[in-house]
Amino acid sequence: MDKLLIFGHQSPDTDAITSAISFSYLQNQLGKVTEPVALGEATDETQYALDYFSTKAPRVVDTVAEEAEEVMLVDHNEAQQSASDIDKVKVVAVVDHHRIANFQTADPVYYRAEPVGCTNTIILKLFKEHNVEVPKDIAGLMLSAIISDTLLLKSPTCTEEDEKAAKELADLAGVDLEKYGKELLKAGTNTSDKNADQILNSDAKNFPMGDFTVRIGQVNVVDAQEVLDRKEELLKEMASQSSANSYDLFLLVITNVLESDSVAIVYGEERNRVANAFGKDIVEDTILLENVVSRKKQVVPQLTKELS
Amino acid sequence: MDKLLIFGHQSPDTDAITSAISFSYLQNQLGKVTEPVALGEATDETQYALDYFSTKAPRVVDTVAEEAEEVMLVDHNEAQQSASDIDKVKVVAVVDHHRIANFQTADPVYYRAEPVGCTNTIILKLFKEHNVEVPKDIAGLMLSAIISDTLLLKSPTCTEEDEKAAKELADLAGVDLEKYGKELLKAGTNTSDKNADQILNSDAKNFPMGDFTVRIGQVNVVDAQEVLDRKEELLKEMASQSSANSYDLFLLVITNVLESDSVAIVYGEERNRVANAFGKDIVEDTILLENVVSRKKQVVPQLTKELS
Repeated sequence: MDKLLIFGHQSPDTDAITSAISFSYLQNQLGKVTEPVALGEATDETQYALDYFSTKAPRVVDTVAEEAEEVMLVDHNEAQQSASDIDKVKVVAVVDHHRIANFQTADPVYYRAEPVGCTNTIILKLFKEHNVEVPKDIAGLMLSAIISDTLLLKSPTCTEEDEKAAKELADLAGVDLEKYGKELLKAGTNTSDKNADQILNSDAKNFPMGDFTVRIGQVNVVDAQEVLDRKEELLKEMASQSSANSYDLFLLVITNVLESDSVAIVYGEERNRVANAFGKDIVEDTILLENVVSRKKQVVPQLTKELS
Repeated sequence: MDKLLIFGHQSPDTDAITSAISFSYLQNQLGKVTEPVALGEATDETQYALDYFSTKAPRVVDTVAEEAEEVMLVDHNEAQQSASDIDKVKVVAVVDHHRIANFQTADPVYYRAEPVGCTNTIILKLFKEHNVEVPKDIAGLMLSAIISDTLLLKSPTCTEEDEKAAKELADLAGVDLEKYGKELLKAGTNTSDKNADQILNSDAKNFPMGDFTVRIGQVNVVDAQEVLDRKEELLKEMASQSSANSYDLFLLVITNVLESDSVAIVYGEERNRVANAFGKDIVEDTILLENVVSRKKQVVPQLTKELS
């Protein structure tokens, strides 16, 4: 049997990387031969979790077709967020918690999406459905993804199921949820050693909205001003990347993980549409997004509605 | 709470109608307020099952937006197979066993697809996951769908899970699987009282393939010659409907449910592509499809590959 590759989205966050690891472990227990890979390097936050739970980061790949005929996608489904040659392989399974778009198969597929806060919450259900035990380190990685995606259960994307799963996984991993959660989130907020490109793209995705291509990056901080102080440098990089990649809009959402608030830097000709979408003015290239912490639930739908 | 509508595809077959009934029953047990509806009249086969298990056929609708804001789709996902105003409502859940295409949401969604032979096989799993008992009549309808979709477990689309589900549901419904199965399939094979349009479209779907629109109808028979004797009448109707609806290809797959073989009548400028797809000649507008019983597994992928 050929080896199946399993991977999350480009610019991988903790859920993208750890859900590939946990789903691959499950598939292997069920008799498949799979390897988790990643479409980018682990962020500081993810690396903290990997180190804490003694796990090697998955191998980083750009393309997949030369080494696998079949793949499984976790934490994403949209082609433009996936491997660059995703059209050359057969997607046999998807486990995801995002909207479905730009996804198409020729054959019936296994597709499991639920509107919960984290892919690993769904994967925990799959472990149970197949009566497979979650090992301690895998549980710790899955927990880290839930903490990351829900900002320690504070995001509006967080459901009761995520909360239950986090508590259960914290027990299995043998850590204190609050204490470990704050350490993990803080590990991902250091921006001082990052260049503009890294701040913009460490957790960024492209979204086709109507006729426009919108790129939205998100960066977690404990002090937004630290990033805003570098606004001119960031805007220059956003301009250059927008021109190179034909983005109509580029947003950097700066989220304070302790205060659960955001401010966004906005670049692009369609900037006024961002102001419309949120009913707020753009002042000096920034817009205040009070109580916004979730790109998926509090940014993408509002912009999609405005631009479609 | 507003009522949610649940429905299967246009030109509904037994799975499309009964999965709306069974999934609606499950959702209502879980506290939602839902109504199963149908995007077309029940076929003779479906009516046989509904009568046998004392269930009223779901109300037939063309559009849904004027009476519901949110809907759930069963046994389909592609927009062109759904309600004509599907773009005006929010799809909150999908349970399906087909390829995914022309499906897009703005928000995260509940999507449950598995490559099994019948939507009701997945729905039976959902009953179990939620610890809801399947009532006798609902079990009978779910069983009827599995028999219909897998041609009494003989189609290559039939999986071990379908077989297990069918046996379990037959027990719950209190019927003999083989005996009831043959009666049900035979109930759906009478073509003598049908006009050409009814034969072509009782179980027909549109498939966009590459730049082409392909319509594929399927009719179950115990004697294919009975339909082939009406070839000229059928071709005339296929020509008229192709011109009215801009079909590039129209296939009528005539499947012998006892011998598990098919022959197709082919109309359209792209007819030669059908010959290519199956490596067989088209003789007098017909092509022999030996051992073919499954449109989804033995017709659509082959044609999609040829036309894309």
